[in-house]
Amino acid sequence: MKYFVTGGAGFIGSHIVDKLISLKKKVIVYDNFSTGKMIFIKHHLKNPNFKLVKADIRDKKLLNESMRLADFVFHLSAHADVPSGFNDHDIDHRENLEMTQNVLEAMYKNKVRKIAFASTSSVYGDATVHPTPENHPFRPTSLYGATKAACESYISSYGSYYDMTSYIFRFVSFIGERYTHGIIFDVLAKLKKNNKRLELLSDGTPKKSSIYIKDGVEAIFTVISKAKKRFNVYNIGHEKVLTVSEIVDIILKSAKYHNVKKIWLGRESNWKGDNKFVQLSISKLKKLGWKPETTVEYGINRTVGYLLSNQII
Amino acid sequence: MKYFVTGGAGFIGSHIVDKLISLKKKVIVYDNFSTGKMIFIKHHLKNPNFKLVKADIRDKKLLNESMRLADFVFHLSAHADVPSGFNDHDIDHRENLEMTQNVLEAMYKNKVRKIAFASTSSVYGDATVHPTPENHPFRPTSLYGATKAACESYISSYGSYYDMTSYIFRFVSFIGERYTHGIIFDVLAKLKKNNKRLELLSDGTPKKSSIYIKDGVEAIFTVISKAKKRFNVYNIGHEKVLTVSEIVDIILKSAKYHNVKKIWLGRESNWKGDNKFVQLSISKLKKLGWKPETTVEYGINRTVGYLLSNQII
Repeated sequence: MKYFVTGGAGFIGSHIVDKLISLKKKVIVYDNFSTGKMIFIKHHLKNPNFKLVKADIRDKKLLNESMRLADFVFHLSAHADVPSGFNDHDIDHRENLEMTQNVLEAMYKNKVRKIAFASTSSVYGDATVHPTPENHPFRPTSLYGATKAACESYISSYGSYYDMTSYIFRFVSFIGERYTHGIIFDVLAKLKKNNKRLELLSDGTPKKSSIYIKDGVEAIFTVISKAKKRFNVYNIGHEKVLTVSEIVDIILKSAKYHNVKKIWLGRESNWKGDNKFVQLSISKLKKLGWKPETTVEYGINRTVGYLLSNQII
Repeated sequence: MKYFVTGGAGFIGSHIVDKLISLKKKVIVYDNFSTGKMIFIKHHLKNPNFKLVKADIRDKKLLNESMRLADFVFHLSAHADVPSGFNDHDIDHRENLEMTQNVLEAMYKNKVRKIAFASTSSVYGDATVHPTPENHPFRPTSLYGATKAACESYISSYGSYYDMTSYIFRFVSFIGERYTHGIIFDVLAKLKKNNKRLELLSDGTPKKSSIYIKDGVEAIFTVISKAKKRFNVYNIGHEKVLTVSEIVDIILKSAKYHNVKKIWLGRESNWKGDNKFVQLSISKLKKLGWKPETTVEYGINRTVGYLLSNQII
């Protein structure tokens, strides 16, 4: 099996590449390094099973050629800056949906029959059921969530037209080594500027879900090896959810910031389109034999340690 | 209230316009007449409450200007040739999703806060539950279904960003006066060429659902006047479903074709991506007090009568 990984130099993508290489698989990473980093994959550069294509998914010709002889596509490249869709109504459409169209077309042309896709808890929007099961309807409150939901539907129809097998993963926030953006990043960046006073957008009550990267990657490989349908949809998350207030306290403790005055600006959610309670059901995933091996606190600690010890913040 | 109707010169659109005009509402029809017909709306041309804009939704500037002072958008314009997406992977994306983006942007710019959208039973794909309820997951098997599902998600996110109220209608096939395409059209067209021998793609067993246009329009107005959520999703269909074989027999009888030899080509479905069993639950709609007033047979008879008496076929 030859694996083609879009966004393979990114946070989640590079961990998937590590796993594939450890399993002795042949891997092609296709990444434009807009957010991906060479440091995340450079340990594989001399491995004969590893090939890097520095290129953009917009380049359909090169995408088609690069995917030749691949058997399985991990499509992880995406525009993951969720709040920005409120001010730029086209960016998620271009970067998520149209890039996924390009990937599906290249799969069709190269007769690649398997795809794993990074979707999101945001497809559910403000879910009416918690923990939210996979069969909850789509009610996205952001264009990020809307375009990811759209990608799922496009994958479903290509799968039906061309007998592809699909693995759709609806992720909560992944955290851990190589984490590049999100609340832990934002809080540490603010504290670096001012370690006495920390302004936070919400009122602290939104409940958020995250999963440690190594647990998340194990979940992905569990599903791919065990799920048997043509169109497989799995939430990936952790049963334990924390309030933003609790998350901030763990970050402060982990980073050894004391005597920080927290200013809660009091909005119900962090930004327009944010969901104030994210908790995905992982019952379906647990039936395949997976469960998270680490606590959310452990994941936050690892993330803080990574960001500080690598002087990223 | 001023209503803006995209595709208002089309089959379903023009019936909605008739209803709005009968209710003394102000109506702007925005239609490029690619499939719409002047004959469907010409009886309103002299009505001071009626305005026609012959234009394309691609023309964003004119769309924005034309929507000025509108309060409510019926977005009915679409690429409704479902099978064609198998051979042209971009047409549904361009004609359904990108045109809906243009409509949503114009609404945002003009601060229009209400939208009714023509979605489809195709969003469910090969549903696992029959009759299929609105909370069934999306598993589209065609790019038509995928792009309509995508439109729903985009509408959901714009609604969340800008406090819009949305009415999403998942239609089965509408039939009746001004019907322009579909199985009744295809069967009559084939019989006109050869009234002895009728070739049919499927094996006759697929079960299809249709609703008479006047019942469908009543359902739409029932929902708009009674549904109270910000994001309202309703199936519109008929409890009675018929096999393709039964539908063909009703058409033959209605059009008075006797001694026609039917050749069933024996495919499980009519074309790649077709769903062989479509039956939507209308329980949610019936709770609002609506039910179909006519039988499916009546609708087919009316459609055959319309097509033949107007010499459309």
